[in-house]
Amino acid sequence: MRHLLSAADLSREDALRILDIAEDMADVSTREVRKLPTLRGTTVVNLFYEDSTRTRISFEAAAKRLSADVINFAAKGSSVSKGESLKDTAQTLAAMGADGIVIRHPSSGAPKVLADSGWVEAGIVNAGDGTHEHPTQALLDAFTMRRRIHGPASRGRDLDGLRVVVVGDILHSRVARSNAWLLRTLGAQVTVVAPPTLLPVDISRFGVDVHFDLDEALARVRPDVVMMLRIQQERMNEAFFPNAREYARSWGLSAARFRALPESTVVMHPGPMNRGLEISDEAADSPRSTVREQVANGVAVRMAVLYLTLAGDREDSL
Amino acid sequence: MRHLLSAADLSREDALRILDIAEDMADVSTREVRKLPTLRGTTVVNLFYEDSTRTRISFEAAAKRLSADVINFAAKGSSVSKGESLKDTAQTLAAMGADGIVIRHPSSGAPKVLADSGWVEAGIVNAGDGTHEHPTQALLDAFTMRRRIHGPASRGRDLDGLRVVVVGDILHSRVARSNAWLLRTLGAQVTVVAPPTLLPVDISRFGVDVHFDLDEALARVRPDVVMMLRIQQERMNEAFFPNAREYARSWGLSAARFRALPESTVVMHPGPMNRGLEISDEAADSPRSTVREQVANGVAVRMAVLYLTLAGDREDSL
Amino acid sequence: MRHLLSAADLSREDALRILDIAEDMADVSTREVRKLPTLRGTTVVNLFYEDSTRTRISFEAAAKRLSADVINFAAKGSSVSKGESLKDTAQTLAAMGADGIVIRHPSSGAPKVLADSGWVEAGIVNAGDGTHEHPTQALLDAFTMRRRIHGPASRGRDLDGLRVVVVGDILHSRVARSNAWLLRTLGAQVTVVAPPTLLPVDISRFGVDVHFDLDEALARVRPDVVMMLRIQQERMNEAFFPNAREYARSWGLSAARFRALPESTVVMHPGPMNRGLEISDEAADSPRSTVREQVANGVAVRMAVLYLTLAGDREDSL
Repeated sequence: MRHLLSAADLSREDALRILDIAEDMADVSTREVRKLPTLRGTTVVNLFYEDSTRTRISFEAAAKRLSADVINFAAKGSSVSKGESLKDTAQTLAAMGADGIVIRHPSSGAPKVLADSGWVEAGIVNAGDGTHEHPTQALLDAFTMRRRIHGPASRGRDLDGLRVVVVGDILHSRVARSNAWLLRTLGAQVTVVAPPTLLPVDISRFGVDVHFDLDEALARVRPDVVMMLRIQQERMNEAFFPNAREYARSWGLSAARFRALPESTVVMHPGPMNRGLEISDEAADSPRSTVREQVANGVAVRMAVLYLTLAGDREDSL
Repeated sequence: MRHLLSAADLSREDALRILDIAEDMADVSTREVRKLPTLRGTTVVNLFYEDSTRTRISFEAAAKRLSADVINFAAKGSSVSKGESLKDTAQTLAAMGADGIVIRHPSSGAPKVLADSGWVEAGIVNAGDGTHEHPTQALLDAFTMRRRIHGPASRGRDLDGLRVVVVGDILHSRVARSNAWLLRTLGAQVTVVAPPTLLPVDISRFGVDVHFDLDEALARVRPDVVMMLRIQQERMNEAFFPNAREYARSWGLSAARFRALPESTVVMHPGPMNRGLEISDEAADSPRSTVREQVANGVAVRMAVLYLTLAGDREDSL
Repeated sequence: MRHLLSAADLSREDALRILDIAEDMADVSTREVRKLPTLRGTTVVNLFYEDSTRTRISFEAAAKRLSADVINFAAKGSSVSKGESLKDTAQTLAAMGADGIVIRHPSSGAPKVLADSGWVEAGIVNAGDGTHEHPTQALLDAFTMRRRIHGPASRGRDLDGLRVVVVGDILHSRVARSNAWLLRTLGAQVTVVAPPTLLPVDISRFGVDVHFDLDEALARVRPDVVMMLRIQQERMNEAFFPNAREYARSWGLSAARFRALPESTVVMHPGPMNRGLEISDEAADSPRSTVREQVANGVAVRMAVLYLTLAGDREDSL
């Protein structure tokens, strides 16, 4: 795998390959020494044009567990970011010996521009671009679902027939977008629930069912998985946005709604959670919540992605 | 040792065990390759809700010298810190594979909340919490005193009968608080000297003697050790605080006061120093000043603490 | 080599030694595992009083490729930098076990003060001080020129007779200053071209030819190398400074000027480039531009400098 730019681009085979290697990576965590020599001598640069401590740390932990050297480059606010094009910055990093560039950028499509241009040899991994995609988040979510359903027999399996309801601000959410593509590729049936003003106009392209009423959606779909999206509180002042109270009441996973779910339904959230807003403590802290598993799986999935983009061409098995 | 939360909690045996292991760690610094493989494959997260470059770097150097991977997380100002509880942040870090969390937090008691809750498996090390405690500072101070007194024969020894005078803003100083507890546990006789407005109301609980006049205290106690605390200059505007000139004249270790001390008296300061305010150049740069030893010993003591909290249960000898 | 403080201090032999070791370091980049164990167990601190992500990352990559541990210390804005002298900060870092201190400081001469004082044992490397010097930049520029001219037969060679034209804000440029000294030491003939207000008053000391008209200078010198300096855009408001349009027209390497150069002339720029201001896309992206080579060579040269200042006394061959 040369780059990881979007979940939409991934074939079923690509996606399963990443998830299966992530299984191996997750096994490493159970060893005495949880470090593989796989990427020794390679350098991964975290090129972040937006703050995202969680995502940065997850990639940093993944790279270090593969024995790569990690260099953090917070472009935001640096003098470099002001006067320099993305092209020149990327070429500079590549010239310094970066084998992989993990990029978070406010502009949708920036990672693809970087990869398609041929400017750099380095593998490019999209760590979130504008409102476009966040493919490693979708991969870790799929990994988490697969493990919850199939357990130790996960390898090689897809999510055929899984009923997933995604709730929240679909319009601005790269997490929702990447999940919609990947889940469909893996055979899941996806329903999105959102206030009408928080749906993208091109929602029909995503091949998902759409509901505006959460209670109705949950009753009708009887989902295997409910994925609550994080509400960006800074959006609350915007005209088309419901206020916090209205949001929690209509689209939050309250204790009552959580109790009304089928007993096997799993609750997911990409974190960090706004407790009391999009998710109640009862749902968040339940054994059926996968919030912490998602974080742990994030490291395994990112190890798999870094392995495939940085070393995969050279040696194809672990 | 599961966690290190406070100096007040440490028994004499616990404290001596840390100090003795720190002796071994200090010896490592004299080797050709000053790195131990002890914590290879483990991850230490520096979770700092307040800036403290010195303390962060000291822990980072300690962890790296034990071959741990280190991830720095400046929570202050990060978007994570805004919307997320300490609990969720800590659980996230643990899920990512943090074996140890070194936490600096503005709220007294935050590290204890984290440890007592059972939220995380990781070892918690208090790197300073509000005005409460800074236990590794007290340990490195005790280590420094012990080495100055007993030299190479330090192992196994406590500070029985040592006369220590601590001078400055006792009220706001977690360093003073941790030192008061630990020094008493190790058998030292502690005298504090401060402006009356800068003493805690519960000073009687600490088992220390109290003086307001520095010259009188030094003359009467004839201390083995004088520990000058750093004055937070931003407090100088506060009503109950003496101004800088008055402070230096009454509570600073001037050249004259330094010369009047017994010849064997050692001068300590946790750094960074306000030269000309709480300490004169003559005192700070004298061979009897331990300022640089304290810094060097800080790395050894933190290596010992990380070793005990992260690997101590698994293998009990180095 | 104890420290690297300025290019002006370097003898021809010193400079060639660094460049020759940098050749060995550059070869490491072609290996399967691009990491040397040379500095294992040593600690390099990047002590940056000014932001400079590029230079910091280049040194960080260099140190890590030699297996050193790296600690980044952004002194700017840290509480340490406010209350603490450079002396105390440096002594603190040394006490924590820093073997090398890479320092970027706004005051000309700060690295030399640090090194001459005897305050610290650590090797001091100047990563840019005020308007004074940036010696590793000059070394990487010389390394780049030497490779372009002599190719694989570079080792042991100097730049005798090479005609170099340096264009831009000579007055404020530590890059220009370091290059002027080093190029002369290595036998090159240096011509500087600048607006009269952007030349230092002591320009006669540098042993360079001075021109104010770029076209005339290029026509007369027929240079082997044209080095375009970065314009600090924040200076554009200053009275003695030409405006951007005037600057680009009179002192920028436009497409027309680039095409008028002899065919073998090489174009250099320390980066980041202001495209359209001091350099045109045509010049910047030409195969005769060395911009990316300079970045890559920067890592090799810094590896050589860290090797010589941190390990050179102990073992003199790689």
